[in-house]
Amino acid sequence: MNRAQLFEQITRRKSFLCVGLDTDSAKLPAHLLTHPDPVAEFNRQIIEATAEYCVAYKPNLAFYEADGIKGMQSLEATMQHIPATHFTIADAKRGDIGNTSAMYARSFFGHYGFDSVTVAPYMGSDSVKPFLGHQGKWVILLALTSNEGAADFQFETLQSGGQLYEKVLRTSQQWGTADNLMYVVGATKADKLAHIRTIVPEHFLLVPGVGAQGGSLAEVAQYGMNKQCGLLVNASRSILYASTGEDFAEKARGEARKMQQEMEILLDKYC
Amino acid sequence: MNRAQLFEQITRRKSFLCVGLDTDSAKLPAHLLTHPDPVAEFNRQIIEATAEYCVAYKPNLAFYEADGIKGMQSLEATMQHIPATHFTIADAKRGDIGNTSAMYARSFFGHYGFDSVTVAPYMGSDSVKPFLGHQGKWVILLALTSNEGAADFQFETLQSGGQLYEKVLRTSQQWGTADNLMYVVGATKADKLAHIRTIVPEHFLLVPGVGAQGGSLAEVAQYGMNKQCGLLVNASRSILYASTGEDFAEKARGEARKMQQEMEILLDKYC
Repeated sequence: MNRAQLFEQITRRKSFLCVGLDTDSAKLPAHLLTHPDPVAEFNRQIIEATAEYCVAYKPNLAFYEADGIKGMQSLEATMQHIPATHFTIADAKRGDIGNTSAMYARSFFGHYGFDSVTVAPYMGSDSVKPFLGHQGKWVILLALTSNEGAADFQFETLQSGGQLYEKVLRTSQQWGTADNLMYVVGATKADKLAHIRTIVPEHFLLVPGVGAQGGSLAEVAQYGMNKQCGLLVNASRSILYASTGEDFAEKARGEARKMQQEMEILLDKYC
Repeated sequence: MNRAQLFEQITRRKSFLCVGLDTDSAKLPAHLLTHPDPVAEFNRQIIEATAEYCVAYKPNLAFYEADGIKGMQSLEATMQHIPATHFTIADAKRGDIGNTSAMYARSFFGHYGFDSVTVAPYMGSDSVKPFLGHQGKWVILLALTSNEGAADFQFETLQSGGQLYEKVLRTSQQWGTADNLMYVVGATKADKLAHIRTIVPEHFLLVPGVGAQGGSLAEVAQYGMNKQCGLLVNASRSILYASTGEDFAEKARGEARKMQQEMEILLDKYC
């Protein structure tokens, strides 16, 4: 999916919501446990309930890998349930030397058919570039994450100027463009969004940390939105686990709709 | 496997060789292709041929993930072929927020039964800690990698002092000890090893980049070895693809033996 197509979906659905499929096989509603693939069935119902209100789905690879091959079968089945209208993100935080990153690209873009994959920047250019240059596919590079440990290295001030996360934003613009490169920017740092927009005005930002992790959607939109929206805001637990009972999908739909309604107002205001 | 047990294996085999199982399903000898699981069969023969001369095996996850579920089945089968005497490394370069890293730990330590996993440091403490504290299990944290892109961020000089990779070495010592934490240190930077040893004198270092990637084993031992060896030196392609014919395992054995013989001399000299 290219940038124009993604923006078209955002405009059509009046939403920039990404639903994070961090589906924990240990937290499923009891009535699904007799299903042959409870994780895929849970995801299927979540997708069916929320597709109207979101533009992207983001399976978190760790949650599938935790169950070994069974988990990867659930992931394959889940990918089949996601409509072609929706942007897909492999939240995998990969990154390795060139020939190895090329193999990860083959897995996520080729085998599973994702539109994008999250990539960690520590190993630099040749760890990221093999993911770029696949027609219609994207790298979503970690810049500023929303977790506590982000402070350990990402905020280090460099003698060459700026903080590490700013260096990542600046250097990586030599590797890709706003048409194949997005950035992860944690929503708990909404005050930093305006500054980040001066460095990467055009790029889409994937913003986690709204919902169960806290973070204000209004602030994110105010400081982060650009003319083509430029935002995908992720919510995982607040939607997936809105209810732990048989009404989980209905409650997830309600949560997604609530976020979409807020997003519609923000799109009218800032985009 | 704990540190004493690992050192015992090194002493017994007079080797600190790690064989990297970067097994590319597209590069297998033709005569294996009729086998139901050619990758696992290739690995089985490589393991059988080299076990006498090495102390560790390091499957590179990307090469298995590239083939989807079939690849993960090959990985499971491969793990069954590795003797319990040998240390196992999931070369996966993972790292995510706490609850997600915990899921990756469940996958590699619980499901696949690895002794250790390589972890990327960019997201800081809470992305690494969930991998620690598993009895007998290890984190191998990326510090200084051997690829070209290492220069993009790892060598950045920080205002707080030192370069980024040094900060990673120093900060991470608050998270784990020499009994559950190792570091990846690229062999092409052998001149930096003496310096790194002043920061982490006790920790084991996993050194890639010897063999097909270049790098001098003698230099690595001279500057990197400590009283308990403290080194695992990896070779992948030079062993796996020593021959592309029916004699691949025999040729792999020859390459591994050659490295072991050099290592035996170096262990006598420096350890």
